Formats: sequence, C-alpha cells, structure tokens
Amino acid sequence: MTTAGLPMTFPLDGLPARVRIHEVGPRDGLQNERAIVPVEVKAEFVRRLADAGLTTVEATSFVHPKWVPQLADAEELYPRLTGPDGPSGVRLPVLVPNERGLDRALALGARDVAVFGSVTESFAKANLNRTVEESLTMFAPVVDRAKEAGAHVRGYLSMCFGDPWEGPVALDRVVDVARRLLDLGCDELSLGDTIGVATAGHVGALLTALDDGGVDNTRLAVHFHDTYGQALANTLAALRHGVTTVDASAGGLGGCPYAKSATGNLATEDLVWMLQGLGVETGVDLGRLIATSEWMADRLGRPSPSRTVRALSHKEQ
Amino acid sequence: MTTAGLPMTFPLDGLPARVRIHEVGPRDGLQNERAIVPVEVKAEFVRRLADAGLTTVEATSFVHPKWVPQLADAEELYPRLTGPDGPSGVRLPVLVPNERGLDRALALGARDVAVFGSVTESFAKANLNRTVEESLTMFAPVVDRAKEAGAHVRGYLSMCFGDPWEGPVALDRVVDVARRLLDLGCDELSLGDTIGVATAGHVGALLTALDDGGVDNTRLAVHFHDTYGQALANTLAALRHGVTTVDASAGGLGGCPYAKSATGNLATEDLVWMLQGLGVETGVDLGRLIATSEWMADRLGRPSPSRTVRALSHKEQ
Repeated sequence: MTTAGLPMTFPLDGLPARVRIHEVGPRDGLQNERAIVPVEVKAEFVRRLADAGLTTVEATSFVHPKWVPQLADAEELYPRLTGPDGPSGVRLPVLVPNERGLDRALALGARDVAVFGSVTESFAKANLNRTVEESLTMFAPVVDRAKEAGAHVRGYLSMCFGDPWEGPVALDRVVDVARRLLDLGCDELSLGDTIGVATAGHVGALLTALDDGGVDNTRLAVHFHDTYGQALANTLAALRHGVTTVDASAGGLGGCPYAKSATGNLATEDLVWMLQGLGVETGVDLGRLIATSEWMADRLGRPSPSRTVRALSHKEQ
Repeated sequence: MTTAGLPMTFPLDGLPARVRIHEVGPRDGLQNERAIVPVEVKAEFVRRLADAGLTTVEATSFVHPKWVPQLADAEELYPRLTGPDGPSGVRLPVLVPNERGLDRALALGARDVAVFGSVTESFAKANLNRTVEESLTMFAPVVDRAKEAGAHVRGYLSMCFGDPWEGPVALDRVVDVARRLLDLGCDELSLGDTIGVATAGHVGALLTALDDGGVDNTRLAVHFHDTYGQALANTLAALRHGVTTVDASAGGLGGCPYAKSATGNLATEDLVWMLQGLGVETGVDLGRLIATSEWMADRLGRPSPSRTVRALSHKEQ
C-alpha cells in the first residue's frame, strides 16, 4: 500500500490497457435501495461521480413510475444533468423499456439508451410480463427509432449465468439472445449475472461461446453481482477474454450489507483498486470516488458495503 | 445455480485438480473476534468443520495466554480435539511462537505446528518484539526440535504484499525471508497479505519471484485478507501459478462486517463456491460448511460476513 491509499502496480499478461467503467450506482444501485433519494441529491451524486473521473454514468430509467418508485423522478432529474449545472464530458445512459419510455427519453435529449432483455422466460415474464420472443419484438422499434435519432443503444441481458426459477442457463441460449439483440441494432451488450452465481470458468466459457457464435467480445460489457463474493474474480476472467467495459456500482450501492440476499453490484471502488493494481487505466480518482460513496452513504443513513470504501473511510463506522 | 445451491461447473485451463483448504477459523478467526468463545464451543466448531470435509483445521495457538486471551484455553482445547470425542482423520496444526510454546504443544501430542514470521521489520517488532533476524534466530531451535519430534512445520510470512507502517514491500525481501524459513527446515510456507492490499498481478509477480529464487510454488500456501475485496481474485491468480493450498476462515470469521477496518480472512464458503464452479476438488460439503458457520454465528451473536453464507442461509437476517 502506498501512502496515498493505492495498491502497488504489477501488470498481468493478456489484460487490456484500459477499461471503461459503466457506473450504474444512480440507476441500478438506487433502484434497489429502500430509501427514495431526493432529486437534487441524485443530481449531485452524478456530478460527483463524473468529477471522480467516471465517463459513463447510467443516470435513471424511463420505466413507468409506478413500477420503480425510486426512479419516478427521471423527467425531473435528467434535465438537471444535461443543464448548465450538470456534469460535462460524461455519457449519461438511461433505461427505456418500450417506445413510450424512448419517447420520454428522446424528448429530453437523451442520446444514450438501454433496453433490458432477459435470457430466460421466467425473468422475461417476471420483469416485462412477456415471453423472450415478445420482448424482442417490443424492443425492435425501440432500437430502430433510437438509432434513427442517433442514439447509442445498449442491450442488457439478464440471467446469463443462472435463474432463480429455472436454475442453470445453457450457454447457447445466451448466445441466441445476444445475437438477436445485435441483429436488432444494439451497439453494445451487457451480460448480467443477476443472481451472482457465476464463477470464473463459467464466464470464460460463455465469452468463448459468444465469440464462436459471432459476438465479438469487444462489444460486450459484464455486469456481475457479488451475491457469492465472485464478482471481482469473474471480472478478471472477463478481462482476459478481451472485455473492456465493466459495470459497477459506486460504494456497492444496491446491495444491503445486512440483508439475507445481498445481491448488490460489484462495488466500483473494489474494481478500481484491482485495476489500479494491475496497471489498467480507468481514469478514476479512487480517493474522490470513495469520498463520493461516503457522502452518498451519509444520505442513505447506512455504511457502504464496499470493502475498499470501508478500509479507506475517513470516518469511524 | 443448481437446486442444491451449488454453481454450475466450468473448468479453467491451468488450474490444479485439487486444492487443500487450510481452515483457519478456529485460530485466526476467533483470535480476531471480540467475543471469548467457551472451550466446548470451540471443540464442537472444529468437529463440525471436520465433518464438513475440511482436512486441515488450524486449532489454536500456544502463545502466552496474556497476549491472546481469545486462545488462552489452548491447553484445555487441544486434548479435547485429540481425544475420543474429537474429529478423526483431520490435521490440527497449532501455532508455536517459541520453544516454550513448542514444549507445551509437543507435550500434548501436537505433531503439526507453525511458526509465524514477518517479512517487515515493523511487524516483527510489533508482533514479536524482535527484528526479522532475531525472530529467525528464535525460530531455528523451534523448527529443529519440531522436526526431531516428527512434526510437520509451517512457516507463516506476514506482510508479504504491504505493511501498514512501511508501505510497499519489495518482492526480494519476501523471497529472502521465505528461503531462510525453508533453510531452517519448514515444510510449507504461507504467504500472508495481512492488510489485504495485494492485487492479482502482485500475487503473480511474487510467486514468479519466489520460483525464480528457488522456492517451489507447490510448497506455498496463500493467506489472503479481504480488506479491499481482492482475496478471491488473488486466490485465482495464485492457483494459476501452481499453488494448491489456500488458507480460509469459515464464515469469514475474524472480519467484523460492521467495522471500519474489516480485515477478515477470505471466507471458506466463498472459496468453495468458486472452486466448485471451477471443478477443483476440495472434499468440502458446502451445505454442511454453511450450517457450521451459521451455528457459529449464532454462538457469536452476529451474522456471518461471508456472502455465500448470507446468500444460502436458511435464516432471515
């Protein structure tokens, strides 16, 4: 450990020189917190994350407010982020479930959107009340019209490594849905381990299967949850396969450290610690990021579940 | 996830077929818990760990009772473990700081002992009140006499990746102390990341330096703390370098999940989840191990910090 609270640097062969962190704290994190955070706090959170060097901050979701009350203020939040007091030089993707959501996002000037698909029928039903096929049919005009508007489109794939209802998920099902989403016109796909069951070999096998199936790994992001403590080891496995975009949540937001099912995202700080140690560039200032997560933890009234935040916190907890 | 609460299996190239887990919960774990656990609970804990399939359970420490009150009952505990009600077919190593400690351990029939050295002067001073050189001089007759008695001797090396007072630790200092401990006659060395700062590349660099310095990696164990969330990724890096012994603590004992400096050991359950997913044999029954950690958490009156224990717990927490 250096005096600055950073690890020593030792590169590993076969890793990318640079990783883009797709920060999901304000959306995936806050969506899964019990507290409903005021819009001005959210705006400040995004601004601080950008100041810490994060270049992609998923800001909110244009789902129907009744489904995700934590993000019901999307219409109010988004203009604050793109206005004169918002962060500059940062991509601010937003989720759009359907054409109605896309209309709302485009009307506010969003040009970075994401659809969220599922690999499994059970989760497609639970999350979208549709079959996988029906959800792809629903996404088709969303992606088309987003592309026409000049937007970058990300496609999320949930339950790539296991499903709470169905159990194991076959690799070829993931490959099939991934190809379908790329065929619709998605620019990037994010492979979600929604229930956190993947291990490093599974990650390697899926990325190999995708590559064999014509899905270039450089178009992929990985989105790991730390339910079984595997998220960082799995990320390392993905980087060895050419993935250069990693989803993470500042402070580990979204996973309550005291809950039975702590299905939180990989904490951005733990990821940055590893990448800093590996000499992989992220552009993130770890000290500023930790200060941001501490600030947010104060707003939420509970400590951060990120181990790195706890280790380097300036507060007694 | 299978219905049995186990991950799917996908082997990774270059990993060992089998890993021996050196379980440190009863010693390193309980030593760092605030509570002082009754001797009969400790004996039952070790018995349950052995029943879960762990073949090496570090049982206690023969340091002077005044330094580690949590383990002051070593003289009472050890005979319970080796008596008719103790576990069978399990190695029960104990720590011995000096000849006096060795005498006590040998008198009780211990034939599996460990000395604990430090790579850094600061920690040698803090932990043993000696220089590194003086501590090696102190260990020489301990190792000699242990070997004469037919004992297996492990040498711990603390602060291999960083030191809270000195900061960065040079690789060649670790190689030097490791060679010295092997020259004294140690059968096995455990590389400790006592403050949890290592990242995967650092692990690889140190193992390469040790190999280049004549220290065969198959004689090494790794002992990671999860302070910055890196323990499992670091373990995976070590396995790729031929290490086949991994230290871990059942339930993540020893790291309070609510403390600022959560310097706990890697949780055995999170390790087993990964190894099971990678198809690496451990002989451990994950369900039984989780039940043991839940039982111990009840005795300690607080939930386990292991994410896998929390995810698969049968209790509401």
